[in-house]
Amino acid sequence: MSGNTIGTLFTVTSAGESHGPALVAIVDGCPPGLELSADDLQRDLDRRKPGTSRHTTQRQEPDEVEILSGVFEGRTTGSPIGLLIRNTDQKSKDYSAIKDLFRPAHADYTYHHKYGTRDYRGGGRSSARETAMRVAAGAIARKYLAQQGIQVRGYMSQLGPIDIPFVSWDAVHDNAFFSADPSKVPELEAYMDQLRRDQDSVGARITVVAEGVPPGLGEPIFDRLDAELAYALMSINAVKGVEIGAGFASVAQRGTEHRDELTPAGFTSNNAGGVLGGISSGQPIVAHIALKPTSSITTPGRSIDVHGQPVEVITKGRHDPCVGIRATPIAEAMMALVLMDHLLRHRGQNAEVRVDTPVLPQL
Amino acid sequence: MSGNTIGTLFTVTSAGESHGPALVAIVDGCPPGLELSADDLQRDLDRRKPGTSRHTTQRQEPDEVEILSGVFEGRTTGSPIGLLIRNTDQKSKDYSAIKDLFRPAHADYTYHHKYGTRDYRGGGRSSARETAMRVAAGAIARKYLAQQGIQVRGYMSQLGPIDIPFVSWDAVHDNAFFSADPSKVPELEAYMDQLRRDQDSVGARITVVAEGVPPGLGEPIFDRLDAELAYALMSINAVKGVEIGAGFASVAQRGTEHRDELTPAGFTSNNAGGVLGGISSGQPIVAHIALKPTSSITTPGRSIDVHGQPVEVITKGRHDPCVGIRATPIAEAMMALVLMDHLLRHRGQNAEVRVDTPVLPQL
Amino acid sequence: MSGNTIGTLFTVTSAGESHGPALVAIVDGCPPGLELSADDLQRDLDRRKPGTSRHTTQRQEPDEVEILSGVFEGRTTGSPIGLLIRNTDQKSKDYSAIKDLFRPAHADYTYHHKYGTRDYRGGGRSSARETAMRVAAGAIARKYLAQQGIQVRGYMSQLGPIDIPFVSWDAVHDNAFFSADPSKVPELEAYMDQLRRDQDSVGARITVVAEGVPPGLGEPIFDRLDAELAYALMSINAVKGVEIGAGFASVAQRGTEHRDELTPAGFTSNNAGGVLGGISSGQPIVAHIALKPTSSITTPGRSIDVHGQPVEVITKGRHDPCVGIRATPIAEAMMALVLMDHLLRHRGQNAEVRVDTPVLPQL
Amino acid sequence: MSGNTIGTLFTVTSAGESHGPALVAIVDGCPPGLELSADDLQRDLDRRKPGTSRHTTQRQEPDEVEILSGVFEGRTTGSPIGLLIRNTDQKSKDYSAIKDLFRPAHADYTYHHKYGTRDYRGGGRSSARETAMRVAAGAIARKYLAQQGIQVRGYMSQLGPIDIPFVSWDAVHDNAFFSADPSKVPELEAYMDQLRRDQDSVGARITVVAEGVPPGLGEPIFDRLDAELAYALMSINAVKGVEIGAGFASVAQRGTEHRDELTPAGFTSNNAGGVLGGISSGQPIVAHIALKPTSSITTPGRSIDVHGQPVEVITKGRHDPCVGIRATPIAEAMMALVLMDHLLRHRGQNAEVRVDTPVLPQL
Repeated sequence: MSGNTIGTLFTVTSAGESHGPALVAIVDGCPPGLELSADDLQRDLDRRKPGTSRHTTQRQEPDEVEILSGVFEGRTTGSPIGLLIRNTDQKSKDYSAIKDLFRPAHADYTYHHKYGTRDYRGGGRSSARETAMRVAAGAIARKYLAQQGIQVRGYMSQLGPIDIPFVSWDAVHDNAFFSADPSKVPELEAYMDQLRRDQDSVGARITVVAEGVPPGLGEPIFDRLDAELAYALMSINAVKGVEIGAGFASVAQRGTEHRDELTPAGFTSNNAGGVLGGISSGQPIVAHIALKPTSSITTPGRSIDVHGQPVEVITKGRHDPCVGIRATPIAEAMMALVLMDHLLRHRGQNAEVRVDTPVLPQL
Repeated sequence: MSGNTIGTLFTVTSAGESHGPALVAIVDGCPPGLELSADDLQRDLDRRKPGTSRHTTQRQEPDEVEILSGVFEGRTTGSPIGLLIRNTDQKSKDYSAIKDLFRPAHADYTYHHKYGTRDYRGGGRSSARETAMRVAAGAIARKYLAQQGIQVRGYMSQLGPIDIPFVSWDAVHDNAFFSADPSKVPELEAYMDQLRRDQDSVGARITVVAEGVPPGLGEPIFDRLDAELAYALMSINAVKGVEIGAGFASVAQRGTEHRDELTPAGFTSNNAGGVLGGISSGQPIVAHIALKPTSSITTPGRSIDVHGQPVEVITKGRHDPCVGIRATPIAEAMMALVLMDHLLRHRGQNAEVRVDTPVLPQL
Repeated sequence: MSGNTIGTLFTVTSAGESHGPALVAIVDGCPPGLELSADDLQRDLDRRKPGTSRHTTQRQEPDEVEILSGVFEGRTTGSPIGLLIRNTDQKSKDYSAIKDLFRPAHADYTYHHKYGTRDYRGGGRSSARETAMRVAAGAIARKYLAQQGIQVRGYMSQLGPIDIPFVSWDAVHDNAFFSADPSKVPELEAYMDQLRRDQDSVGARITVVAEGVPPGLGEPIFDRLDAELAYALMSINAVKGVEIGAGFASVAQRGTEHRDELTPAGFTSNNAGGVLGGISSGQPIVAHIALKPTSSITTPGRSIDVHGQPVEVITKGRHDPCVGIRATPIAEAMMALVLMDHLLRHRGQNAEVRVDTPVLPQL
Repeated sequence: MSGNTIGTLFTVTSAGESHGPALVAIVDGCPPGLELSADDLQRDLDRRKPGTSRHTTQRQEPDEVEILSGVFEGRTTGSPIGLLIRNTDQKSKDYSAIKDLFRPAHADYTYHHKYGTRDYRGGGRSSARETAMRVAAGAIARKYLAQQGIQVRGYMSQLGPIDIPFVSWDAVHDNAFFSADPSKVPELEAYMDQLRRDQDSVGARITVVAEGVPPGLGEPIFDRLDAELAYALMSINAVKGVEIGAGFASVAQRGTEHRDELTPAGFTSNNAGGVLGGISSGQPIVAHIALKPTSSITTPGRSIDVHGQPVEVITKGRHDPCVGIRATPIAEAMMALVLMDHLLRHRGQNAEVRVDTPVLPQL
């Protein structure tokens, strides 16, 4: 495939640039009979939408999604689902200045070398605007999974230097940061306000959890569930690292400490993050991702132009000082897409498998 | 695909269990004309081979690879390359004890639930023995890449709690730990000896670097170079985390600190790890992986059997107290496979692209 | 993949129903730098468009295509190209009658059993309306191929019992039948008029030819060029047979007669249809397809309803009495898509191959 | 993928040359729990084996297959199944003569142009010897399908100019021609003996039928069941045409004649060949393929060498005067592989679909 499609049985193919006419996606392989309307997608799109707080870009995009196909009389038919989001707030004039130069930490330089040309308006295809379609497609997977008792949720677990402990899921959607600890919000807001005064940006860490995943999802050897989660999560703009369960903390752990023991009452811990040998264990699937600080900042930086001459770059325009703030719904969507695909793949090969052994809860 | 194939244009399909007759792989898409002999593969296989030091499993496997096809008169023909490694040291009697129970932190429980059956001898398909074929296939990619001026190398950057700084590539192959700092070796040996006395195991961190990679490799949006590296590296047994460049350190970085500035003399830093927008920048590609501690340890652990009854598990047999020690050649192989695939994919779509803009070195 | 995507490096993913809001497609893997506008696609769409003569359905569809992405400043960027065609002439009321019954020789019965539900309006996803997107996507491939000196053209070689010899390419577009023999047109028109009076339909045979294809395209063993052409052409609605070169006539041929001899002046014949061992030979690639008679006819037929009860079916509405009449541009498009994909795949793996041996013309 | 893999969920990847050390294949995605031994594969391999009658090549190959993995205690585990067949009767010296020239109607010329090099021994990768692995892999699919009540069988329906009517399945395996009409065998033998005296070869037509296929298999739009059958069957060496059901006869049929009417008692005919809209209808799936005459004949032919100079070619060695004679088991295997893959794909997406509508038998 050519890079814009994800999945094997449940696939999403995406297209569209930041400042082109529209974003479009085709979701293929959705089982028939699922109740689905544009509202189901809009709900998640609104959670990712720019301009919802003073801490994110002020670009105004309604991000209204239209379902073009695959749904009839309110239910999916099994045919591919076409999705369309028109770009409305396109300020192309903002971008002509960077036509011939490369913004540091952006994809300008690499796209230029790969394709010999690029749509420089707002980053074109490399803009995080594309993730709107991931969220829309992910909403379809999340709704189907929810009906199977699988719930995919995320929260921000670190903003720059500030650790954000998990307190409760209820808190997550009451603040602009997707913080699971309401008491942390004032500190986060103060930090962001100072950051803006510093004309700087910062990274973030997002944690995504899937509960209710049955054991057995994931295809060894290469298409392990954790490997495909790493692929899907690392494909999100600005992500520089992915952990499953204990992640990099496993390095310093002893085997006696890391191994999750099994008892008739359940697993005694979840260092594995719900995946053993690349297959889901029935425990919650836990992934953490690291997002780099926003590359577009107004503090001048050094770069070169297409002729190799030195230039000074100041990225104007409307940008998120922390791209991580809006990344939670995107990470949820990507995990949902992977789980959905593996649920169908598992059914395809192992539909006849029956096991008496009890499925263990997590203690 | 069904999980045992990796790649789009340059593909590797693998099969074989730890204690079955043989491991086999088919490498498809290798360009014709590459000089290739079994010795080229054997060299890397020997670096991964068990029993080479007292710090790894004492299982005796010559791991002799045979090329079954795709090579004629010493050169590749463009036809698929069949690879075969016979298993010779199969002590199946060791394993009947665990037939009906699940070893903690192993894939026993998940395979059982997925397939309703499993080859319990030495972990069967879930055994790291399978990685021998990754190394053999990776050796083909590494040889081709080397001829293109691309060099893929790795080293152990952390063993349990011990950080191992990078000193020189020369040091890496003079010790059993793939340590790039020779002065650290005595400390590592002492640590491992104590670990064995403790009947315990520990994790490790491996760093892999590709130098000489031209800008332009990688397919946005999903098949980003970093996303596919994350997929390929996370698919290695025991890996729980993947970082590209600054990785999780990016979370606490400011944008002014993280962004790698461009000057006519070159990039001023490499926090990106050689990938921007999912496409190689021409800087060295740097990835770090976290490996969990070996699950097979002789310290008793709690588990259940297939009937859900509690059991005590002691894993006998010959095991690596730190699976990370032998992981370096495997990680090199996986990075090479991904780079090889993307080199061919890039050529396929962008063969006609010509760019005058200079390629920047790293300062 | 889930069935709505074709290709490996150059891929087309399609969605949309006959009477839904729109048809949509994403064309991925197109090389950058290709001059492209909606007009380039519209030209081919208009050749397929319904209602252009009294011999085709009178459904009025402007089939206006919009390019949503992947083109910037008049040239492709290498990013995926989104295509949209709104459905305008949707007479849904025509179709409620067939909601609960299965039209003979249609996909009603099979979709019902596969998905348990179906969009019954005009055949929904199974309608040939979907082929509009194949033509639009194919136009992109045809334009790129043309710049490489590869020309894909087709004509109707048989209408029902009437053989139509090849006379000249110029004639093909001067008549509604894509006949390469202008002198045959009156006979074809008379036949069609009688057919309509008989309230019946008939099949057709289309021949597609690609000239200027370099030797070397096609991937043995399974992804042979002829195998993928057979796949792509058989996937067109109503196609029941595919031949390459001499096709079924080969059965009665002797080896001395069938083999195309090579001389320094060129190949002496082209029974192979331009493909040997699944790889293009440099001769014209010749394929023939058989299209069944239109299933929608006003002559009553027997069928059953969803409850298994017998019903009489009369297909009203606006239908082509010979679907083959509009199939030529579709067959051209499918051949172009396959050639395009294999051109890129070949470049990917064999970019470095240099051969002194002369390429033979066809005598 | 790179051309040597077929399938989406149930995949076969093949490697090996005519005169290399061995043929090898990896069958991935087979459901666990299937009883399987080498004997199950050997049975079909023996039906294809050379040297079984005076009408086929006298090359002596035991074609003994070894199962390398994926089977434990007599049953499949769900892990990939590795298959190995050693080449034993390699007369490489026979082939040095054709090292630098191109045999007419062979793949020599096209492989040379594609790869710049080729294994000229017995055609190397382009030899029909590779089909042994298709038959071995197909045997796995056929056994699984048989347990689902799906039977795939084929017979020779035409040898050169001689039509061979279908009389009974029992007859097929009592003669060297896979003739379903025992009374035709003497005529076929006489024809073949004369053909050998003429130092010539001839083509054949094979018919393959799958019975017991449930309705619902096949993925519109591109991965139609008939489209993938066309792909799989056309990928067999020497095949130049594929028909489904009425095939090319559909061209001259009227709609009233072609359409298979549905009655509560069943379908009244099967012009569709068991596929409507790309999805199985529950009727027998019927495909016909055309095989060209053997290219290797001892009657001299004109060709050129790698320098473009004219040469006279006489193909010595041991060849089938009609490759079609041994093609029946291969065609059965390919149809079985496609059905197997689509059975798993259908389960994956539509596992939850329940339909009350009765499945119609064929009258």
